Amino acid sequence: MWFATANIQKNGDNHCRRALAIVINFSEIRIMESSVLRLARKPIENVRVGFIGLGMRGPGAVERFISLEHATVAALCDLYPGPVADAQKILSSHGCAPAKEFVGPDAWKRLCELPDLDLVYVAAPWQLHAAMGVYAMECGKNVALEVPAATTVEECWALVDTAERTRMHCMMLENSCYDSFEMTCLRMAREGVFGDIVHVEGGYCHNLSTYWDKYRDDWSMRFSAEHHGDVYPTHGIGPLCQLLDIHRGDKLSYLVSMDSAAIAGQAAADSRYGAGNVSFSNGDITSTLIRTARGRSILLQHSVMTPQPYSRLYRIYGTGGYANKYPVPGFVFDSGKEYMPEEEVSALLKRYKHPVWQELEEKALTVGGHNGIDYIMDYRLVECLHKGLPLDMDVYDAAEWSSIVELSEKSILGGSVPVQVPDFTRGR
Amino acid sequence: MWFATANIQKNGDNHCRRALAIVINFSEIRIMESSVLRLARKPIENVRVGFIGLGMRGPGAVERFISLEHATVAALCDLYPGPVADAQKILSSHGCAPAKEFVGPDAWKRLCELPDLDLVYVAAPWQLHAAMGVYAMECGKNVALEVPAATTVEECWALVDTAERTRMHCMMLENSCYDSFEMTCLRMAREGVFGDIVHVEGGYCHNLSTYWDKYRDDWSMRFSAEHHGDVYPTHGIGPLCQLLDIHRGDKLSYLVSMDSAAIAGQAAADSRYGAGNVSFSNGDITSTLIRTARGRSILLQHSVMTPQPYSRLYRIYGTGGYANKYPVPGFVFDSGKEYMPEEEVSALLKRYKHPVWQELEEKALTVGGHNGIDYIMDYRLVECLHKGLPLDMDVYDAAEWSSIVELSEKSILGGSVPVQVPDFTRGR
Repeated sequence: MWFATANIQKNGDNHCRRALAIVINFSEIRIMESSVLRLARKPIENVRVGFIGLGMRGPGAVERFISLEHATVAALCDLYPGPVADAQKILSSHGCAPAKEFVGPDAWKRLCELPDLDLVYVAAPWQLHAAMGVYAMECGKNVALEVPAATTVEECWALVDTAERTRMHCMMLENSCYDSFEMTCLRMAREGVFGDIVHVEGGYCHNLSTYWDKYRDDWSMRFSAEHHGDVYPTHGIGPLCQLLDIHRGDKLSYLVSMDSAAIAGQAAADSRYGAGNVSFSNGDITSTLIRTARGRSILLQHSVMTPQPYSRLYRIYGTGGYANKYPVPGFVFDSGKEYMPEEEVSALLKRYKHPVWQELEEKALTVGGHNGIDYIMDYRLVECLHKGLPLDMDVYDAAEWSSIVELSEKSILGGSVPVQVPDFTRGR
Repeated sequence: MWFATANIQKNGDNHCRRALAIVINFSEIRIMESSVLRLARKPIENVRVGFIGLGMRGPGAVERFISLEHATVAALCDLYPGPVADAQKILSSHGCAPAKEFVGPDAWKRLCELPDLDLVYVAAPWQLHAAMGVYAMECGKNVALEVPAATTVEECWALVDTAERTRMHCMMLENSCYDSFEMTCLRMAREGVFGDIVHVEGGYCHNLSTYWDKYRDDWSMRFSAEHHGDVYPTHGIGPLCQLLDIHRGDKLSYLVSMDSAAIAGQAAADSRYGAGNVSFSNGDITSTLIRTARGRSILLQHSVMTPQPYSRLYRIYGTGGYANKYPVPGFVFDSGKEYMPEEEVSALLKRYKHPVWQELEEKALTVGGHNGIDYIMDYRLVECLHKGLPLDMDVYDAAEWSSIVELSEKSILGGSVPVQVPDFTRGR
């Protein structure tokens, strides 16, 4: 482990940026388990699902699973009885049998322990995802975790270790990977339309000022109050890692991260908790640069405190072409520097539309969930379990993408020092 | 001086990223000269200008100066006689007297030594700017240098030292600072329309594949072949530093830089010089994050090798508002996340139009030069000299903005280590 003694000047915000380890890599000290790359398990005729967390994201998931042919909502769990009762109403309104109920602080463990359950679907607060994922797998359940799957590198390793030991699936519910535009571009990338991709950009740029009330007990704002770094990296990094074939031909090598002062963040905390009561850490905007082993670069941003247009960036720079998603889909090809005309873009998007969207678009837009992307995600999860296929995203994806929460914080606290991204596949 | 021993994995490209100093700061060992902040010199009735370098940017400048009321084109210099003769033709076609001629490798020194000259205007290749600037000031001339003003930190200090000792003006010809949109936003920022600005983005994203033939003796491509880093940072960083009041209330503190592999760059070099003859260093895209002393962050990008829409980014994130210039001007205000409607944008741009553009727009668009921005720049330069005012941009701006060429390279070669930005004002 190497240390960089950073001789960085004192910054305008109150945080003292200290010298910090460049490498925080736990992989060497781990027992070598057998890989779960391309893990396939035997087909499940009907996937019995238990839901943990029925606050924000849970009820919509319950509704979507009702619409899936090979799935049954078998169990419901929440800290409080109200959300469970509401979810039962969703079931009865669709003519479904009531699910088993679990209410209270440790009730989620009882759900995981059910003998007749195939999948645990977790939409609890961030800090609980990893522990729930580990416990569910220990109980012999496949698990799907809302984003991020973990908030520390140690938790990421716990997920990987447990998945390898139990041979259970652990998928992070990264819905942006199922967006029609992202899937279309992924197909284009795989077919070589962008040439060699040299740089990609993604992020979560979304003014959340009207959202803070929606997180029970303020867990989201409290987490940001206590942490520097990109606390919500997966919507951005997920589709980019798929474009770059991360741990399928390339790997994330190291990152540097920098944030701005928390001016709007502190103001939000002051107005919420009273001035001076909570010191807010998370910068109003956090930018992270990541380099891959093959020399591609990634820009990742997190910006949720200030006015701005919603954007996950999603820009692709290749030797043969360029794409961006926002504010409207744009492409430049060959040696060009002008955007392709609008009508040609429509034809292009149609031509490369991903087979999944060709097949399911109508249903997805009817069932909904972020314009159908949640439906496609849940559909694919159940389809793969039903058919005994490897899932679209594995536990290594979940770990790599989620590890950026802590790695970016470490970089920032060290004065933007480079931090190595662990190889969660242990070189495989 | 502190060292970070970077334990970075070997990268896909051939370059071995070595351990590198975080701080490269020459300021402590410099003699303390008296500052030239807000330097004003006595008014010049008629500014007699000599031009060095009449290849790409020179002839347009000659044409613009002919149109300026208080300026006279007094001398012309180039390595070769052809461009000088062509520039004389421009003069005669406008009914101007012929200028003194200087041709050959050292001829620029003779031009600087002319007794009856007020301003030396340099549009030679990058690598010569600083030496010419220093010599011109030593000869008692004000000097205007094309971008970047220097390519090393040492050269930046040479410009600052010489300006302070000779008390002459040294301005970098950063025309993007005179763009109507940038000047409008600068006025909005000064009037508090964006609230506290927490993050800004700029860059030079311009596919130059059709431009490489225009640089005499390939100096531009050769420089990029030999250097990592943001070799052309000033169009991006200039307007951003003005927004953030750099060395007028805030300062650039440190930066980290990361590039992609040089896939398109190497292909361009191979097609130009034959495969295997020139190893091309500069990454296809280089991203730099800079933090200021007051805790604002800057993203700076350089991307000239791959297909992409022309962009200098120019995005502003403030606690009260957001702006972007590309692909079309966009604003979001208050707690919004939707772009302001197009007609309101037009009204806003009209309302905050900078006084200089209100006054000069018609003339600027007639005389031209990058949609009039070159005219406004030259107009302001001559106006300030004529009236004895401080110039819009001083030698510290030139040094700060240009120093990123070397600082970003140092960061990249060290594996994206943080590098301190020198305080060229020496704490003033």
